[in-house]
Amino acid sequence: MKTFKSKYRDMRKKNNSMLVIGIDTDVERLPSSYSKNATGVLEYNKHIIDVTKDLVCGYKINTAFYERLGYLGWECLEDTVRYIDRDIPVVLDVKRGDISNTARSYAKAYFETLEVDAVTVNPYMGFDAVKPFLEYKDKYIFVLCLTSNPSSEDFQRYGEPPLFEVVAQKVKDWNNEFGNCGLVAGATKIKDMRKIREIAGEDVIYLIPGVGTQGGDVKKILVIMRNVEVMINVSRSIIFSRDIRKTALEYRDVME
Amino acid sequence: MKTFKSKYRDMRKKNNSMLVIGIDTDVERLPSSYSKNATGVLEYNKHIIDVTKDLVCGYKINTAFYERLGYLGWECLEDTVRYIDRDIPVVLDVKRGDISNTARSYAKAYFETLEVDAVTVNPYMGFDAVKPFLEYKDKYIFVLCLTSNPSSEDFQRYGEPPLFEVVAQKVKDWNNEFGNCGLVAGATKIKDMRKIREIAGEDVIYLIPGVGTQGGDVKKILVIMRNVEVMINVSRSIIFSRDIRKTALEYRDVME
Repeated sequence: MKTFKSKYRDMRKKNNSMLVIGIDTDVERLPSSYSKNATGVLEYNKHIIDVTKDLVCGYKINTAFYERLGYLGWECLEDTVRYIDRDIPVVLDVKRGDISNTARSYAKAYFETLEVDAVTVNPYMGFDAVKPFLEYKDKYIFVLCLTSNPSSEDFQRYGEPPLFEVVAQKVKDWNNEFGNCGLVAGATKIKDMRKIREIAGEDVIYLIPGVGTQGGDVKKILVIMRNVEVMINVSRSIIFSRDIRKTALEYRDVME
Repeated sequence: MKTFKSKYRDMRKKNNSMLVIGIDTDVERLPSSYSKNATGVLEYNKHIIDVTKDLVCGYKINTAFYERLGYLGWECLEDTVRYIDRDIPVVLDVKRGDISNTARSYAKAYFETLEVDAVTVNPYMGFDAVKPFLEYKDKYIFVLCLTSNPSSEDFQRYGEPPLFEVVAQKVKDWNNEFGNCGLVAGATKIKDMRKIREIAGEDVIYLIPGVGTQGGDVKKILVIMRNVEVMINVSRSIIFSRDIRKTALEYRDVME
C-alpha cells in the first residue's frame, strides 16, 4: 500500500494541485433536494468527490459533522472514505489527544478500522499522546501548531517564545525521529507563518486551513511557503458553493 | 430534565460516592466468554453498569474504545449511554477542541444526539472552541488542565507561571460567566493539585483521573480537595478486575 507521502506527492503532480477540499458536510446546509440525514450527506459527498477528484491533492474530513448524526453518521463517514479513490490521500481531521493507552485505540480506529492516510492531533497532552499515531510510519500526523480561529491567542501565544513556536520545534524533532510528522498552521496568521516555517523547516508538510470563509489570503501564504510541501484546505466556500467544480478550479488555479 | 449538577449532587449523596467508573472497554481485554466485537462490548458494559450503579456518582465513557470498532462501535456507545439510568450523570470523555462552527457540531453530537450530561474538552484552541459547549447551561464542561500522563510536562508546564495555571484561571472565569465549567486535574500530580485548587476555587467541579493503573493516590488527593466537589475516575483497575463490584466498593470506601 502506498504511503501518505507518496500519495500526496503523486496527486500533487498529477492534478497539479495543492488544494485539499474539506468534506465537512453540515447536514443543515444541504441543498433542499437532498434528504437531511446521513443518507443525504453521503449522496452529497459523492457528488463533491465526483466533480473534484481531478482537482485536489487530498481530501480532509472533520468527524464533528458525522458524529452529530449518531452511528449512522459514522457509517456515512466510513462510506465517504471508501468512496474516495485509494490513490487520493485522506486526512481525517479529528484533533484527538489522549493518554497513550487511549491514543493507541484512536490510532487503530483511524489507521486500521477506517484506513485513512493521515490525521490531525492536538499537542496539549504532549509526546506520549502523539507517539501511538507516529508509530504508523506509512501514515502522516499533522499536529495543531497555530490554529486559524480568533481564540488561538488564548494559549497558543502564551509565553516567550510563544507556545506555538515550542510546538513547531517539537514537530520538527518528532519528524526527525519518525519521518511522518507535520503541522497545522492557520492561514489567518500570515505573519506567524514565516516564523513557523523558519522553525519547523522544509522536511515537514504543512496543512493550512482558514482559506475561504475564514478569510486567509492564498497568495500571501504561497510567498512565504515557497519550496515547501503544503496542503491548503478549503471547506465551506467550496462544498456549499453554487458550482462546486468551478469554485474548486478557481481555488486550485489561484494556488498554482 | 435534571441538570448535570443536580444529577451529580443527588447521586453523590444517594450512593455516598465520589467514584466515577470509566467504561473504557478495550475489546481486546474482554473476558473470553464475551465475543470480541461491539456486541460483546455492549454486553460487558451492561454487566459493569448492573453491578456498580449503586456505587458511583457518575460514569465516564471514552470514545476512543468505541470509534475503534467503527460505526457498530458508535452504536454500542449509544446503547451503553441509553442503558445507564437517566439519574446517573454520564461524562463523555472526548477531549475535543475545534473552531466554533465545528465545535457547535460536536456539542450537538453529544448533548442533543447522544444526550450525555457532560464532556471533556481540550483548551489548546482557546475560548471560542469551548464556548459552543458552555452554551448548554444544563450540561457540564470539564476542561483539560493538568493531565495524568508523563508527557503532560511537554506543554502544560510551559512558561512562568506554567500554562496549566493559566488554564485553571480561565476555567474559573468561564465558570463565573456560564456556571457550568470545571476542570480535569490528573491524580498523578498531587503537588500541583493544591495550586490548581487555589486558582480555580471552590465553585468548579474537579474531574480527577489517574487513580488506579496510573498510580494516583486517593488519600493524598482527598486531603487537598477537602470541601470541594470532585469526581474521581477509575477505569481499567475496576472494569477489568476479577470482581468488578468488590473492586468498585473498595475504591468507593477508600474515598469516603
